[in-house]
Amino acid sequence: MSQREVKRNPLIAVVMGSDSDLPSLQPAIKILESFNIQTEVRILSAHRTPLQMIEFAQKAQKKGLKVIIAGAGGAAHLPGMIASLTPLPVIGVPILSKALSGIDSMLSILQMPSGVPVATVAIDGGLNAGLLAAKILGTSNPDIVEKLSSYSKKLHHKVISKDEALTSLGSTEYLSKENH
Amino acid sequence: MSQREVKRNPLIAVVMGSDSDLPSLQPAIKILESFNIQTEVRILSAHRTPLQMIEFAQKAQKKGLKVIIAGAGGAAHLPGMIASLTPLPVIGVPILSKALSGIDSMLSILQMPSGVPVATVAIDGGLNAGLLAAKILGTSNPDIVEKLSSYSKKLHHKVISKDEALTSLGSTEYLSKENH
Amino acid sequence: MSQREVKRNPLIAVVMGSDSDLPSLQPAIKILESFNIQTEVRILSAHRTPLQMIEFAQKAQKKGLKVIIAGAGGAAHLPGMIASLTPLPVIGVPILSKALSGIDSMLSILQMPSGVPVATVAIDGGLNAGLLAAKILGTSNPDIVEKLSSYSKKLHHKVISKDEALTSLGSTEYLSKENH
Amino acid sequence: MSQREVKRNPLIAVVMGSDSDLPSLQPAIKILESFNIQTEVRILSAHRTPLQMIEFAQKAQKKGLKVIIAGAGGAAHLPGMIASLTPLPVIGVPILSKALSGIDSMLSILQMPSGVPVATVAIDGGLNAGLLAAKILGTSNPDIVEKLSSYSKKLHHKVISKDEALTSLGSTEYLSKENH
Amino acid sequence: MSQREVKRNPLIAVVMGSDSDLPSLQPAIKILESFNIQTEVRILSAHRTPLQMIEFAQKAQKKGLKVIIAGAGGAAHLPGMIASLTPLPVIGVPILSKALSGIDSMLSILQMPSGVPVATVAIDGGLNAGLLAAKILGTSNPDIVEKLSSYSKKLHHKVISKDEALTSLGSTEYLSKENH
Amino acid sequence: MSQREVKRNPLIAVVMGSDSDLPSLQPAIKILESFNIQTEVRILSAHRTPLQMIEFAQKAQKKGLKVIIAGAGGAAHLPGMIASLTPLPVIGVPILSKALSGIDSMLSILQMPSGVPVATVAIDGGLNAGLLAAKILGTSNPDIVEKLSSYSKKLHHKVISKDEALTSLGSTEYLSKENH
Amino acid sequence: MSQREVKRNPLIAVVMGSDSDLPSLQPAIKILESFNIQTEVRILSAHRTPLQMIEFAQKAQKKGLKVIIAGAGGAAHLPGMIASLTPLPVIGVPILSKALSGIDSMLSILQMPSGVPVATVAIDGGLNAGLLAAKILGTSNPDIVEKLSSYSKKLHHKVISKDEALTSLGSTEYLSKENH
Amino acid sequence: MSQREVKRNPLIAVVMGSDSDLPSLQPAIKILESFNIQTEVRILSAHRTPLQMIEFAQKAQKKGLKVIIAGAGGAAHLPGMIASLTPLPVIGVPILSKALSGIDSMLSILQMPSGVPVATVAIDGGLNAGLLAAKILGTSNPDIVEKLSSYSKKLHHKVISKDEALTSLGSTEYLSKENH
Repeated sequence: MSQREVKRNPLIAVVMGSDSDLPSLQPAIKILESFNIQTEVRILSAHRTPLQMIEFAQKAQKKGLKVIIAGAGGAAHLPGMIASLTPLPVIGVPILSKALSGIDSMLSILQMPSGVPVATVAIDGGLNAGLLAAKILGTSNPDIVEKLSSYSKKLHHKVISKDEALTSLGSTEYLSKENH
Repeated sequence: MSQREVKRNPLIAVVMGSDSDLPSLQPAIKILESFNIQTEVRILSAHRTPLQMIEFAQKAQKKGLKVIIAGAGGAAHLPGMIASLTPLPVIGVPILSKALSGIDSMLSILQMPSGVPVATVAIDGGLNAGLLAAKILGTSNPDIVEKLSSYSKKLHHKVISKDEALTSLGSTEYLSKENH
Repeated sequence: MSQREVKRNPLIAVVMGSDSDLPSLQPAIKILESFNIQTEVRILSAHRTPLQMIEFAQKAQKKGLKVIIAGAGGAAHLPGMIASLTPLPVIGVPILSKALSGIDSMLSILQMPSGVPVATVAIDGGLNAGLLAAKILGTSNPDIVEKLSSYSKKLHHKVISKDEALTSLGSTEYLSKENH
Repeated sequence: MSQREVKRNPLIAVVMGSDSDLPSLQPAIKILESFNIQTEVRILSAHRTPLQMIEFAQKAQKKGLKVIIAGAGGAAHLPGMIASLTPLPVIGVPILSKALSGIDSMLSILQMPSGVPVATVAIDGGLNAGLLAAKILGTSNPDIVEKLSSYSKKLHHKVISKDEALTSLGSTEYLSKENH
Repeated sequence: MSQREVKRNPLIAVVMGSDSDLPSLQPAIKILESFNIQTEVRILSAHRTPLQMIEFAQKAQKKGLKVIIAGAGGAAHLPGMIASLTPLPVIGVPILSKALSGIDSMLSILQMPSGVPVATVAIDGGLNAGLLAAKILGTSNPDIVEKLSSYSKKLHHKVISKDEALTSLGSTEYLSKENH
Repeated sequence: MSQREVKRNPLIAVVMGSDSDLPSLQPAIKILESFNIQTEVRILSAHRTPLQMIEFAQKAQKKGLKVIIAGAGGAAHLPGMIASLTPLPVIGVPILSKALSGIDSMLSILQMPSGVPVATVAIDGGLNAGLLAAKILGTSNPDIVEKLSSYSKKLHHKVISKDEALTSLGSTEYLSKENH
Repeated sequence: MSQREVKRNPLIAVVMGSDSDLPSLQPAIKILESFNIQTEVRILSAHRTPLQMIEFAQKAQKKGLKVIIAGAGGAAHLPGMIASLTPLPVIGVPILSKALSGIDSMLSILQMPSGVPVATVAIDGGLNAGLLAAKILGTSNPDIVEKLSSYSKKLHHKVISKDEALTSLGSTEYLSKENH
Repeated sequence: MSQREVKRNPLIAVVMGSDSDLPSLQPAIKILESFNIQTEVRILSAHRTPLQMIEFAQKAQKKGLKVIIAGAGGAAHLPGMIASLTPLPVIGVPILSKALSGIDSMLSILQMPSGVPVATVAIDGGLNAGLLAAKILGTSNPDIVEKLSSYSKKLHHKVISKDEALTSLGSTEYLSKENH
């Protein structure tokens, strides 16, 4: 069964303005996949395919989507424009840009006017966008909360075991042995 | 009946590090109130009452909260620390700070590490934090979606009627008549 | 005859996301008026009236507009979105914003992706937006070039006469006499 | 026939302060060439050949130029100085600078005083400068508007086909197959 | 005898793009006056009176000027353009600008390309520009060095006496008594 | 007994480049006074009284000082220069500057080279400088730790009581009653 | 004897949010080691192991620690949160971050609210954090002051001998011979 | 004859805080050498060899120096401290720093307080520092003005000949042939 077929009833859409943004968003897609949350992944440019973007945003809620993750870089209008066209919560991912390191993307996504919020995460924060989308679904789905808790525990234990390794090896040996 | 009594089963908490942040968060409180969404409003300082903050965050989900809005300025650790202690989605509001105009608050809230997202809104974006919280509840509550739609329509019509006034008056007369 | 009636065949549209942007754009409107260039002035919000904005942008060329001046603050999507929906040249005016002094507006308007340019002017540079629009019309209209030259000469002579006053009075007397 | 000979009656000049700016401006030159718009390409330094620059700017309109594209980095005075010496519209391209990533170039070009606009595009936005110049010519030349529309359609279809590929392959396979 | 008459053989010119810059430059004029160094004060706009500026810069050395102080705000091309047209040392004063607090002025003046230096002082650093001009003259004029030393001693003693007052009064009484 | 007499054996010096910095440092002086820690307060300019500053720094340790708090604005060399001349820990307070809001002061104090640390606190963070100095003395003085704990408890209880007032009054009444 | 065993009674803790911060903090660990000051090195994440961090901070003083060095990047809450939970002086090291070069880390650590200071050093200033910790211990330990003086002398002599080499070789030969 | 011997009566000193700054200052040294202006090159650290720096600055004028060029990075106190100790004009070169790209160096050097100017050039602007020093000497030495004019002419002709090559080859061929 192809990756496409399983996505019949996606709850979350991951959209981006350009396929060059995909590597930054792939962690969102993978974490949602690992939580068994169906996602739809789309390239929709606010500037190059505005009508497609508008149609997508207007139909998003009706076709059962619950949350939209939108990544964009530079002028980064995609998250805000989608947010203006749907009642769904929109999560914006500022993509690291070449000249300005994502500062332009960050401000264009974050500084939305009153009335049209975009839930902004860190620059290139694709993974956190996926987790935030899961947390939002978790407000009405205890199974997802369970999965989020397991995930947090894994992160937690990874830190604990690194702390133990550092304590037992000392910093010099840790630095030479470990692969950071 | 006092404002406190009606908040027996709050779905959303609005917390802040200092009561000087309250004016920036009051629009969140009022919009949620206007949507009949019960809120709990608290002053919890990550730095001055850390143990109270921790206890609040740890118990938040169990007592029925669905979303936490946290405003903070400067080093602004409150939203991130709460997010590290609860599976609930946390919305961060960077408060306009004196020296750095909220740039410090914005980066301290937005640039969270992988694994612990905070849904950041604009500097002093209290109203959008409230609307985002409502949108999150709306993912499982069609009534709230309805209220959000009405709210958007009101904003929409306000722009339309201002556009009509401007078109009919011309910009010079509009500027002299209107109270911007 | 009202201001509206004379604008039957506007060549230039001056649009803004909010009437709070009008004072920054009024200099564009006035300078175009002084050049006898018909303008249409509209409030069209990318976020609050997206469908009206889209319709406006899609019809702009057909109804005879030649240039669109769009002012916006903060996330400032209006100029870029209009530019994505029309072949007309779009001039963007970043409006001075409260927290970030227009840096957010500037980057959101300027940093457009390849394929969809916006001709950006200085923060709150309404007057220059009007002059740039006139220069664009001037590429096929010698009368407007004439008016632009007269305008430049006036600016030029104002500097010359201030320079003469300063030279004759000396800086101390100039500062005490003049009203800067 | 050499590239030089065909440029007998250029409508657009592409000028730069240093030949190190040429790679950033070459996309402007190529897109205008592809639209069959004659261009003149010059190295004119505001600081090293100021008199040549002045002469060029003063004669630009008389020799039939319609639009000037000027790229510069750092203090970046070239676009603004040319704009002060010609009634033609000037498009400024801030070149990515070493220490400050083009922030210096951007502000030096964008923040022009009232009376002398420069139509600024994104940092290293050479392609958009070319398209903007074409849009300006298009205000009086329907053929160019036609070419711009074809160009936009190509961009549009490229996004559409990438979106289809992503949808059919899924993000993981897309990332491994495609050459981003 | 008027202020103008004494300035027959000015050694230093203080030029500015607009008379709104004069208050920031007046401290330079006054300190040079107090050192009995003849100055010429001019309003010369790189953008509004470019040919006058060019003529001034080209003739500056021949008429006996030794140093040029140039203040400008925003795109701030005046100091750099003058520097490109004269072998004299040029001191640039970035004027505090409205939107960007002089950051634009500072970068436009400071980030000159190799070959054409501008000696930049602090934002609104008019007084330091005057002192720097005097220091430059001092490299061949011991009298001026003497005057600079006296000036420094006065600054020095002012700090010493404030330190003594603070030590004797204590900070609380000092704050209540003194007029800061 | 005058404020000066009690300061016979100061443990902490509070120095500043100009008396205009005193209001930002007065909270440090007052908190140390409230902890009964003797302080010496001095105006010592790195640039106007460099030799006095050097002498002070060189003698600081011998005369029994334990910590030096140094406030400075703009180029802000005072903290770093003192740190280069004494083995004592130096706490730097970046003073809010006019044009750049203390960003210049912050970077000039913080970005010290390897070998010469300055313990930097927030912009205008005088109170925290005083508390940090007390914490440093506390590493060998349990009485001071006690006083710091009492101080923290007071801050803690102030937050707790404000939280209680807010909870009992509700945000609207709290905002209208309280004096923020 | 392993590195761990010798650290029975550490006076200084070096903690970090992630082992990716270790290379930036290793210079602190090594300099303290070279001064024979016992250190404890820990990975404690404010966001991934908040309860462990809290427990560490609460017990730090009782187990004999005198100073805590905390490094963190991005939102960088670790230093400030530890400072809110212990009376010990906390030194914060902003770690160079990918997108924003440590500006986010710097502001999140430096801009702490009144009442809870963090002694911030330069971005990636691990070595200076170690030296500052030693200076703090030195306020009650003359042996450490002695070691700090020796260290400063070594730095001093290294500069002196490089200056001599440069003077004797000339810059061209120095550049070609030396390994910078 | 060694490079050192010829420097018996240097007119200009080029000093730096660390030999890592030498590559950025070498262009100043080489251009002054090419003008036959004797220079003294020194490593003098404001923070590691403060007394040597002070002694150098205090004796600079007496031993015949006319101008001091000082390069420094990060907190960059060297130029300002030297300027506070000598009546000579001091030229500051902000060295490109690792984390902040020289923004810290630039502000620390530029934002000097009233009374103590530093003539700041661009980030890593070593060549311009050398030229500015020559221009200062040129105010009393026509030979140096002559050399500066020749140098400017060379720069001028280099641009002219590149412009001719570009015009004759066309941009595509120029880009492929030339070595940028």
